[in-house]
Amino acid sequence: MTDASLEPPLEPISISRRLVAELLGTALLLAIVIGSGIMGERLAGGNDAIALLGNTLSTGAGLVVLITVFGPLSGAHFNPAVTLVFAARRELSWSSATAYIAVQVIGAIAGAWVAHLMFGEQVLQLSQKLRDGPAQALSEAVATFGLVATILGSIRFKPEATPMMVGLYITSAYWFTASTSFANPAVTVARSLSNTFAGIAPSSAPAFIAAQLVGAALAALLFGWLLNETKRP
Amino acid sequence: MTDASLEPPLEPISISRRLVAELLGTALLLAIVIGSGIMGERLAGGNDAIALLGNTLSTGAGLVVLITVFGPLSGAHFNPAVTLVFAARRELSWSSATAYIAVQVIGAIAGAWVAHLMFGEQVLQLSQKLRDGPAQALSEAVATFGLVATILGSIRFKPEATPMMVGLYITSAYWFTASTSFANPAVTVARSLSNTFAGIAPSSAPAFIAAQLVGAALAALLFGWLLNETKRP
Amino acid sequence: MTDASLEPPLEPISISRRLVAELLGTALLLAIVIGSGIMGERLAGGNDAIALLGNTLSTGAGLVVLITVFGPLSGAHFNPAVTLVFAARRELSWSSATAYIAVQVIGAIAGAWVAHLMFGEQVLQLSQKLRDGPAQALSEAVATFGLVATILGSIRFKPEATPMMVGLYITSAYWFTASTSFANPAVTVARSLSNTFAGIAPSSAPAFIAAQLVGAALAALLFGWLLNETKRP
Amino acid sequence: MTDASLEPPLEPISISRRLVAELLGTALLLAIVIGSGIMGERLAGGNDAIALLGNTLSTGAGLVVLITVFGPLSGAHFNPAVTLVFAARRELSWSSATAYIAVQVIGAIAGAWVAHLMFGEQVLQLSQKLRDGPAQALSEAVATFGLVATILGSIRFKPEATPMMVGLYITSAYWFTASTSFANPAVTVARSLSNTFAGIAPSSAPAFIAAQLVGAALAALLFGWLLNETKRP
Repeated sequence: MTDASLEPPLEPISISRRLVAELLGTALLLAIVIGSGIMGERLAGGNDAIALLGNTLSTGAGLVVLITVFGPLSGAHFNPAVTLVFAARRELSWSSATAYIAVQVIGAIAGAWVAHLMFGEQVLQLSQKLRDGPAQALSEAVATFGLVATILGSIRFKPEATPMMVGLYITSAYWFTASTSFANPAVTVARSLSNTFAGIAPSSAPAFIAAQLVGAALAALLFGWLLNETKRP
Repeated sequence: MTDASLEPPLEPISISRRLVAELLGTALLLAIVIGSGIMGERLAGGNDAIALLGNTLSTGAGLVVLITVFGPLSGAHFNPAVTLVFAARRELSWSSATAYIAVQVIGAIAGAWVAHLMFGEQVLQLSQKLRDGPAQALSEAVATFGLVATILGSIRFKPEATPMMVGLYITSAYWFTASTSFANPAVTVARSLSNTFAGIAPSSAPAFIAAQLVGAALAALLFGWLLNETKRP
Repeated sequence: MTDASLEPPLEPISISRRLVAELLGTALLLAIVIGSGIMGERLAGGNDAIALLGNTLSTGAGLVVLITVFGPLSGAHFNPAVTLVFAARRELSWSSATAYIAVQVIGAIAGAWVAHLMFGEQVLQLSQKLRDGPAQALSEAVATFGLVATILGSIRFKPEATPMMVGLYITSAYWFTASTSFANPAVTVARSLSNTFAGIAPSSAPAFIAAQLVGAALAALLFGWLLNETKRP
Repeated sequence: MTDASLEPPLEPISISRRLVAELLGTALLLAIVIGSGIMGERLAGGNDAIALLGNTLSTGAGLVVLITVFGPLSGAHFNPAVTLVFAARRELSWSSATAYIAVQVIGAIAGAWVAHLMFGEQVLQLSQKLRDGPAQALSEAVATFGLVATILGSIRFKPEATPMMVGLYITSAYWFTASTSFANPAVTVARSLSNTFAGIAPSSAPAFIAAQLVGAALAALLFGWLLNETKRP
């Protein structure tokens, strides 16, 4: 129970503590993603690459910390797509999964609002940044495929490094996908409520979420096969 | 006594060595924070995001080193808010805590002056950079909440990684809070004595410090509850 | 079999799984290298150093993850020059090496095309970016010498850190070599098929590949000698 | 003998291998420092902060790799100031120290020339970049004080992390010292032979080296006292 792995089961920890951990962690994640996006955009003088560098550094570093601190409590999913993968693998009950997803979405929205408050922005916003088309959808499918592959592979081969691997993966994926790698339905919902650097128009969100679920499912299937034979007796 | 955890007790080390470690570590921390801010501002050609990238990289990397080297000696608090949390948790005596805070403030001011000397600046300065208002205060409360959560969670679940976690947390928090995350009363005092990139007007400092203490107290309370049930027998 | 070392033998894993791992890993590597290059170039407003910072961050972080996840499956070479070194050291059969190299090249090209699709670029391209002359060739020889030295030294002294060392090495080498350190024949072939930031004109590719093989061979020879005497009994 | 610590004794490794390791490692270090400086300056469009970001990333990451690979062979000093500290602590014979320093200087110069060749620059150069005055000297004393403190503290408390700590320290020090932290007499000599971003006028070099030796001696004295009492029985 002392390693920071994402792997359930975490039975000795009460469900109330697990849900608070999942809610708080997702809220902090969104405060990081949206807050650092605002900071980047405000300071970068119009150069989006410089803004994205700050956004990337903050998100990647923050994720390592959040997963290290909350992983032993709730698994530190912070992500409905990840929770669904663990439920499908029967490593989390469907009732727990449902509760996880609910608090992830609530936490994500709360985190977005905390970011707005910290930067003196209006709390309630709707993004107007369209992110449409097949290239964006493919980006999200690839991004989430890679995230689930990273999680399953790390847990299988080097579980104590899972927080670092997820942080490094997202650091990389912010740059190699055209969508800057949301890779997370709860994050997508919350970012639709922020008309800032990290925002996404609500009308663009459903296709993002669908692509994320497809990518997650493909990774779960392929890595189920790839990792199977290497099981130790 | 060989891991770099922040966790007391550290009894085998004499109080004089512990105070020298705490003073020297805090001085180096401020030399890093203020020095890299000056460097960033001088070189960045007016683009504050680029200056903040250098400031962030230097502070985050430096913190990991300082906590690794001084952690086994003094706990490497470098921060009155952190020292108060440990005292409140009865992991440090109140008399030691008082001495810690005194040398932290002295060290912080000395470090700011060393930074000024290294960059050929006048030693004695007062910052004129106002950082006022509720958004700034909320930022400092969130920043310090996160810092204390990071420290308590890391010590609980992965103590050998505490230096890296604190460094990564501050790397993230420089960007996701509107105040660039001072999160430290001694740092706040010293930065009020530097009219450079990292400075804060003395009139803005008290609200920062109050917000930091509120954030630290909230984290100590919430994580006291969250981490309690996971205790191993 | 649970560490992420590159070191063969990996016999318990079927050759089909190993080849899928090598193909998928190399594809993702190229999606990262070329995708983050496109992202950097599009956002950086003409400042190639900023574009290269994003490209570097993404590639270095991504490599650590890919080698951690795929290393225990296939060795995570992703690189014909590395595969040839292991074959020459008799740590991989020549028949396996041939199959490895084939899937590396196929995967690399596929990854380049995925990057193009994610960014809405035409899939089939040929680079027009000439990278000719002795300075470029020397750069590639040095880059690949350093990469093979990093791999052999890490496996010898700190195998569990090999993924991190390779990621850090490439992070460094993108900047200290004039060629931005391709250091990989499969990567060179795939980048010749992308007329974007990371591209290389097909006419410049053969000299790059030759220089890479020379650098790899020199490192294998020198480190064979350097590392030999330190063997434990 | 398998950890990457800098700590001697390394007796099972022949002196010839140790000197080759020290020479090659120092040469690669200078190729990194000077090469990434040239790359940064060429691409950054006149913004020195952006150039320094690339220079920093490359140097910090490269140092971690070099110390991991060469540490178990030679101790990976790459630095006469560090070698002198170990000799003064009687952890290295004075005759070995003399040989170490000789190959460090030779390797450093060779590495500078390799960087020039990789970037198509004239091999033989003299820097014209004056770095004079007390602020620069203080910067070098602080930089080297911090480097030696980092090394002695890491070896004492977390030896397996020494390569990472030195890399992170230099990452930080490039920004928090006004001199960009040469902190190394061999590096200073070699950089005087490069009229590029990382250069230093030969007339400025002696004061740098003197300040480095003062900083190293102060750190050795202070940390000799600080670390003494924590010895395990």
